Amino acid sequence: MTASDFLHSTVDFERAERQGAAEIIYAEHKTPEQVKDIAAALVANGQNLFATRADEAHFNAVLEAVPDASYDALARVIHYTLTPCDEVQLGKIAVVNAGTSDLPIAQEAALTAAFLGGDVLHISDVGVAGLHRLMARIDEIRACKVIIVVAGMEGALPSVIAGLVDKPIIAVPTSVGYGASFDGIAALLGMLNSCGSGVTVVNIDNGFGAGYQAAMITRLQADRQKG
Amino acid sequence: MTASDFLHSTVDFERAERQGAAEIIYAEHKTPEQVKDIAAALVANGQNLFATRADEAHFNAVLEAVPDASYDALARVIHYTLTPCDEVQLGKIAVVNAGTSDLPIAQEAALTAAFLGGDVLHISDVGVAGLHRLMARIDEIRACKVIIVVAGMEGALPSVIAGLVDKPIIAVPTSVGYGASFDGIAALLGMLNSCGSGVTVVNIDNGFGAGYQAAMITRLQADRQKG
Amino acid sequence: MTASDFLHSTVDFERAERQGAAEIIYAEHKTPEQVKDIAAALVANGQNLFATRADEAHFNAVLEAVPDASYDALARVIHYTLTPCDEVQLGKIAVVNAGTSDLPIAQEAALTAAFLGGDVLHISDVGVAGLHRLMARIDEIRACKVIIVVAGMEGALPSVIAGLVDKPIIAVPTSVGYGASFDGIAALLGMLNSCGSGVTVVNIDNGFGAGYQAAMITRLQADRQKG
Amino acid sequence: MTASDFLHSTVDFERAERQGAAEIIYAEHKTPEQVKDIAAALVANGQNLFATRADEAHFNAVLEAVPDASYDALARVIHYTLTPCDEVQLGKIAVVNAGTSDLPIAQEAALTAAFLGGDVLHISDVGVAGLHRLMARIDEIRACKVIIVVAGMEGALPSVIAGLVDKPIIAVPTSVGYGASFDGIAALLGMLNSCGSGVTVVNIDNGFGAGYQAAMITRLQADRQKG
Amino acid sequence: MTASDFLHSTVDFERAERQGAAEIIYAEHKTPEQVKDIAAALVANGQNLFATRADEAHFNAVLEAVPDASYDALARVIHYTLTPCDEVQLGKIAVVNAGTSDLPIAQEAALTAAFLGGDVLHISDVGVAGLHRLMARIDEIRACKVIIVVAGMEGALPSVIAGLVDKPIIAVPTSVGYGASFDGIAALLGMLNSCGSGVTVVNIDNGFGAGYQAAMITRLQADRQKG
Amino acid sequence: MTASDFLHSTVDFERAERQGAAEIIYAEHKTPEQVKDIAAALVANGQNLFATRADEAHFNAVLEAVPDASYDALARVIHYTLTPCDEVQLGKIAVVNAGTSDLPIAQEAALTAAFLGGDVLHISDVGVAGLHRLMARIDEIRACKVIIVVAGMEGALPSVIAGLVDKPIIAVPTSVGYGASFDGIAALLGMLNSCGSGVTVVNIDNGFGAGYQAAMITRLQADRQKG
Amino acid sequence: MTASDFLHSTVDFERAERQGAAEIIYAEHKTPEQVKDIAAALVANGQNLFATRADEAHFNAVLEAVPDASYDALARVIHYTLTPCDEVQLGKIAVVNAGTSDLPIAQEAALTAAFLGGDVLHISDVGVAGLHRLMARIDEIRACKVIIVVAGMEGALPSVIAGLVDKPIIAVPTSVGYGASFDGIAALLGMLNSCGSGVTVVNIDNGFGAGYQAAMITRLQADRQKG
Amino acid sequence: MTASDFLHSTVDFERAERQGAAEIIYAEHKTPEQVKDIAAALVANGQNLFATRADEAHFNAVLEAVPDASYDALARVIHYTLTPCDEVQLGKIAVVNAGTSDLPIAQEAALTAAFLGGDVLHISDVGVAGLHRLMARIDEIRACKVIIVVAGMEGALPSVIAGLVDKPIIAVPTSVGYGASFDGIAALLGMLNSCGSGVTVVNIDNGFGAGYQAAMITRLQADRQKG
Repeated sequence: MTASDFLHSTVDFERAERQGAAEIIYAEHKTPEQVKDIAAALVANGQNLFATRADEAHFNAVLEAVPDASYDALARVIHYTLTPCDEVQLGKIAVVNAGTSDLPIAQEAALTAAFLGGDVLHISDVGVAGLHRLMARIDEIRACKVIIVVAGMEGALPSVIAGLVDKPIIAVPTSVGYGASFDGIAALLGMLNSCGSGVTVVNIDNGFGAGYQAAMITRLQADRQKG
Repeated sequence: MTASDFLHSTVDFERAERQGAAEIIYAEHKTPEQVKDIAAALVANGQNLFATRADEAHFNAVLEAVPDASYDALARVIHYTLTPCDEVQLGKIAVVNAGTSDLPIAQEAALTAAFLGGDVLHISDVGVAGLHRLMARIDEIRACKVIIVVAGMEGALPSVIAGLVDKPIIAVPTSVGYGASFDGIAALLGMLNSCGSGVTVVNIDNGFGAGYQAAMITRLQADRQKG
Repeated sequence: MTASDFLHSTVDFERAERQGAAEIIYAEHKTPEQVKDIAAALVANGQNLFATRADEAHFNAVLEAVPDASYDALARVIHYTLTPCDEVQLGKIAVVNAGTSDLPIAQEAALTAAFLGGDVLHISDVGVAGLHRLMARIDEIRACKVIIVVAGMEGALPSVIAGLVDKPIIAVPTSVGYGASFDGIAALLGMLNSCGSGVTVVNIDNGFGAGYQAAMITRLQADRQKG
Repeated sequence: MTASDFLHSTVDFERAERQGAAEIIYAEHKTPEQVKDIAAALVANGQNLFATRADEAHFNAVLEAVPDASYDALARVIHYTLTPCDEVQLGKIAVVNAGTSDLPIAQEAALTAAFLGGDVLHISDVGVAGLHRLMARIDEIRACKVIIVVAGMEGALPSVIAGLVDKPIIAVPTSVGYGASFDGIAALLGMLNSCGSGVTVVNIDNGFGAGYQAAMITRLQADRQKG
Repeated sequence: MTASDFLHSTVDFERAERQGAAEIIYAEHKTPEQVKDIAAALVANGQNLFATRADEAHFNAVLEAVPDASYDALARVIHYTLTPCDEVQLGKIAVVNAGTSDLPIAQEAALTAAFLGGDVLHISDVGVAGLHRLMARIDEIRACKVIIVVAGMEGALPSVIAGLVDKPIIAVPTSVGYGASFDGIAALLGMLNSCGSGVTVVNIDNGFGAGYQAAMITRLQADRQKG
Repeated sequence: MTASDFLHSTVDFERAERQGAAEIIYAEHKTPEQVKDIAAALVANGQNLFATRADEAHFNAVLEAVPDASYDALARVIHYTLTPCDEVQLGKIAVVNAGTSDLPIAQEAALTAAFLGGDVLHISDVGVAGLHRLMARIDEIRACKVIIVVAGMEGALPSVIAGLVDKPIIAVPTSVGYGASFDGIAALLGMLNSCGSGVTVVNIDNGFGAGYQAAMITRLQADRQKG
Repeated sequence: MTASDFLHSTVDFERAERQGAAEIIYAEHKTPEQVKDIAAALVANGQNLFATRADEAHFNAVLEAVPDASYDALARVIHYTLTPCDEVQLGKIAVVNAGTSDLPIAQEAALTAAFLGGDVLHISDVGVAGLHRLMARIDEIRACKVIIVVAGMEGALPSVIAGLVDKPIIAVPTSVGYGASFDGIAALLGMLNSCGSGVTVVNIDNGFGAGYQAAMITRLQADRQKG
Repeated sequence: MTASDFLHSTVDFERAERQGAAEIIYAEHKTPEQVKDIAAALVANGQNLFATRADEAHFNAVLEAVPDASYDALARVIHYTLTPCDEVQLGKIAVVNAGTSDLPIAQEAALTAAFLGGDVLHISDVGVAGLHRLMARIDEIRACKVIIVVAGMEGALPSVIAGLVDKPIIAVPTSVGYGASFDGIAALLGMLNSCGSGVTVVNIDNGFGAGYQAAMITRLQADRQKG
């Protein structure tokens, strides 16, 4: 028996139909060859391409099959849009990150939301150690329909923002920190225990998941408009 | 120096204005007397009353100050509505729980969403051990605008539903289970690592938080309608 | 061999001399009889009495030996002052707790600091979910020489205060919360990872330790004055 | 005293007799030289060779002693069969993995079962995010006598399959995931808490253990036939 | 909205057909009333009844609906057999527990296997601290087709038995122990890391799960005989 | 099948012969009836009786079978000596506990060592917060052949004593503490990481294990004298 | 949307005013380019520069913008002082580390305190395994106003010093150790559970935080003098 | 202030006098230069040299100062004996390791014991998966005065040996394993919870600590002979 006795992947071509977005490729534990094969299959099938946690090797392999694909090295995202998303979006999505070190994850969230048609406002480095920086931007944030808050260390920013707005907040803990941050556990626990109402949480460093749900929420509103 | 040198609570009367809902009382670590004081202050201030994780003693104390308050023993919620929420809601909120044992938390979510004006569809005991039970109800679930999924043990239900719908899912892990469920950690981790896109998570047994954000999302749509 | 072959405790009568305060009794794992014996020995030795984490049974036993002892049931502290502390204190100690549920631990901190001669300002229920409550008191807090901040759940309050003042902050995580608060671990980790500079941390629910060090710091200044 | 005062290994030549299979070499923490010595001893003793978690260096060392040995780089297995297993197998073993990233562990399971005489059906990438992929293959799976299910992230696949079949399931959590997957802990806990009956679990990434027991179960049936 | 707006349970009457055994009731987090309702529904549907982790209150409630039900207080199992299982079993199932303290879980395993038609040999208190006790019974154990090994503390017994037999072993860690046993984590980890081949593991104190799979394995053999 | 189909315990009567001490009963997870049965069997077999972690109910049950048994309520030990241990002991065993709260575990260690013939010196409440108390007794401790050190909280005492003596130290972490002591984990980790050489550790609150090994060590010396 | 749509950092120029010290740069998760940008902005703004956890690449980038910056490779600190701190300090700060391996973190603490105007006494390698080394220096330590104690492994040194002095102690756990030290968790827990009064704790390896608060405390005294 | 303001180490020259052995160097977190300095100081002081967890760089640095030093690469030990230990040892020390992969740690234990004058019998690869290998050597082991047992994975070997001998056992968990072995935690917990009496435990991979205490125990006997 050998590995070639079966296909490595069973691509889910119906996902766009069923869920409103094509299958997204999670590249991290896959070989460049596997990512290339899936990317090629999707594009051949007329679907858009979005791969997260991709490194340079993944990108170079994908380029062989999809020469026009782009790569965002900060966010580690490969993307290629065949058919732009034209769903009406009824408001902006705020992406707010606490520190400069949280940028890669915030960028992943912003790119994901934009890929799914979202209209993103991104504000960086307004953590709680200098509240006045946040206050200077709070009205812009309040005007958005959903707010993604990205923070490492103690992850306090979502709680503070939750007390200042009346919009749903998606909190993204990052692995930024050291020692007893335990690669993001401190921020994750802080966010799960937020005293602010209306805060939900995604996995550590999961900017993708936050961006995805935020786009679902603003698209929902569009759906309603059409209804 | 004695405990009476200062007031035990600083009630946040402006929250309704700022966040669209009055301060909610988290009763669990408070004395019945403290809960009564806060409840009385809120009602005297013309605000609605909602207290979570309240036991019989909390309720009896509150009755002294708010004789018309109600108590839901399953969900452990005290509530009293002075001014019904009249915001337009643009769609239903599904509350789906995996097992009968998850009912109290699902009920807390449902009551919270309803208190904030949400229109709730509640479906119980459709866990993954018998998928046909879920499939029999999946069209009703798909027709909702946001889906709260409550599950203990391995917490697999949100992942399965995420693969079947195109709506945001708020997953609520419960402490139902034993041994290596570690009072809900297994379900929490399962949900945070969901392979389904568009799943966010709240704290273990936090039906309140899920109901609160779900109502924010459907209310958001209403806001938009008014816009 | 029997338990009576040796003495259960070796009371440290020289501690007041060596450390500026008599031995404090940690009552929790001791029998009422043991606490009574140690209390009697201290008072017979001319020292003040302070016992933390004491329940009613401990207090009743102590009353047999020290009839004038007092008991604070909220903070679970037994105390009796033979010789009031007359050291000059050069400023106030702020004790700030985030929620009403954190009161017992804040009260333990305040009583400890006061027992050691500290001048305490106690402000309750000004957590980050309603920042305006904190802002209304921030000038009073800034005027203190050291600030004890007591918070459960995500423990974000010390980080926020650290960004607003230029004084040392001693953060006390409490076991208030549920689920992924893990009896205070979330708050503890949050405080250890505070993005605010100048924050140190004590054990979960250790109001005593915070009050003790705060009094040492303000007394230090007094020492200097005398120097 | 020096390291050469004793032999590094005490090879268990009687294991094939006692347990129905020769000693399997766990290569990971051994030096290439040690693996070579054990491999040489086994083959010299007329036994088959199977080494797991072996890297290229281990394989190259083994080749010096067993020139006909093979290496599967995906599964990290070295194997050499002197005497093919001729026990009657009474049914197929299904190896099902949730995502493409789980392939190496699934392949280790499949190779192990095949080495011990098992008849393996391997199906890849049919995770719960697209249930229809699983449903398309479920009859093939049902026809097997025992089912190995390999999954990372939340590890929900064994629970879902357990609800659809009446055969024993051996669940293999993998370290695929990030953040709060904690290198496979999330999947491990999910599988241990499966709401499906008839699910047992092996160590994280232990494809070998699952393949071994599956072969024991189908061989068992053969034993019975001979009885 | 009230709790009575929906049914608390969605009983899975097709499970016997689909999986070869009726739905088993996990009583622990359910009210006596809920367990009674489900039990009544199952029996009314002509199915056998088996409820695990049931206390006296659960049993008394069930008796109102199923007067002939039995209760095993040691194993905390309620059971009632309407139609005895008549499937041919091709061999015995050994249930071996390490210490007297592990008896309740071993008994749960034995009752579960017997309920599903298994033929059980139960041997108690033969832990590794006195190997000769195990050796005195090892031939009886070897003659079984599958072996359930129940142990707390360090959980070493499955590893030792695995080295002595050629049959699949299902290891059940128990919460017996103290301190660093962490309510069964030590035994669970020990079993997951067993150096013996062919050991799979279930949740802590999950005698039911082990008994269930063991019966599936021996029934499998019977299936084959009929084929 | 019922629980009476097999014996609950397989008493190891040969242990005294094999290991130099009769089987010790660990009472905690056993019923009073089970402990009585084992105690009766041992005494009927002419062996001494020692049961740890026994409560009053265990003791009362044992008294029915062994009317002359004694009970130490502090250490929770039942004991009865038929044949006094007459082995020559070549030196004293020191049992040193850090705080008064650690007495029960220290007493368990002392009683165990004495039961096995050890000559015990017990010193209580000499923790590191007041080093002069330890220094006042250090020469007595140095004169012993092996030193058991019992401590909770941070568990620092074994490290300090290790730096002052040239004898083997057996460290016993206790569950005394709160918050981040995690029921003894802090002390356990502290002792495992001791910077002092010659420190070994037993389970949290395992005074028995420490007393047992200490007696083995001093008895060893006696063996040698006889040799 | 691209990463250049927004600024990576929002430098907090008012922090010196508000908190008595310029923003400190935490370099670890930032790119050299980002650190350079922030450093340049601070210096251009007339503020002093201090960056922690900086590697050689960070330093080389900073040199391009701030050619006179210095780098301490042991402590991994970049610093540049435009305006020396001239606040009166009323006493010395002791920095005491237990082992030679703890030097880098102790050095980070010492440099931080010195940068903020502190007068530092640094004593290295006086851990509890050889108490006489500590005793030889204890009078110097007692003469300081605040004591930073840096230790890895079991972290016992702060407890021992706390019993010998009457000054506040800031304990810094380090990641020095192996196995069950869990990268500093053992030391962290030990320090949080110190039986000594007046001990507060910072994050693992957070020499910076300890130095910062120590300087705040001694500066506080100066403030008072001026008052 | 610079790093050269103080000495990096305070060598404890009196330790040989006080504890019967010179200071042992723990090299892992030290620079080669630091290790060389300490080694040179010890040898210049007429003491023997022993450094654990040393790599090639440490050894090369030491050679500059102590040209006759030796290095054991397997155990990672540097040693140099100026004055051989001539204390009478009253019996052998057994060092038994479960698998070939545990050899480096067992070798560290053996070298340490030998350095301190111990007479070591080393037996490798006799784990519980093949009990007959252990039984073939059990009489040799029984004849030793103290037994060091080194094992990774589930760490069951100490429990099994404890049931077969009447000598003190020092158990050494190793980090050998994968997945849920958590770098040795599984083995550590297994050993701490051993059902065998007379087992104490050291840190994960701490062969040194085990060898040190074993030598103390056998030396103790010699002391006695001289008495």
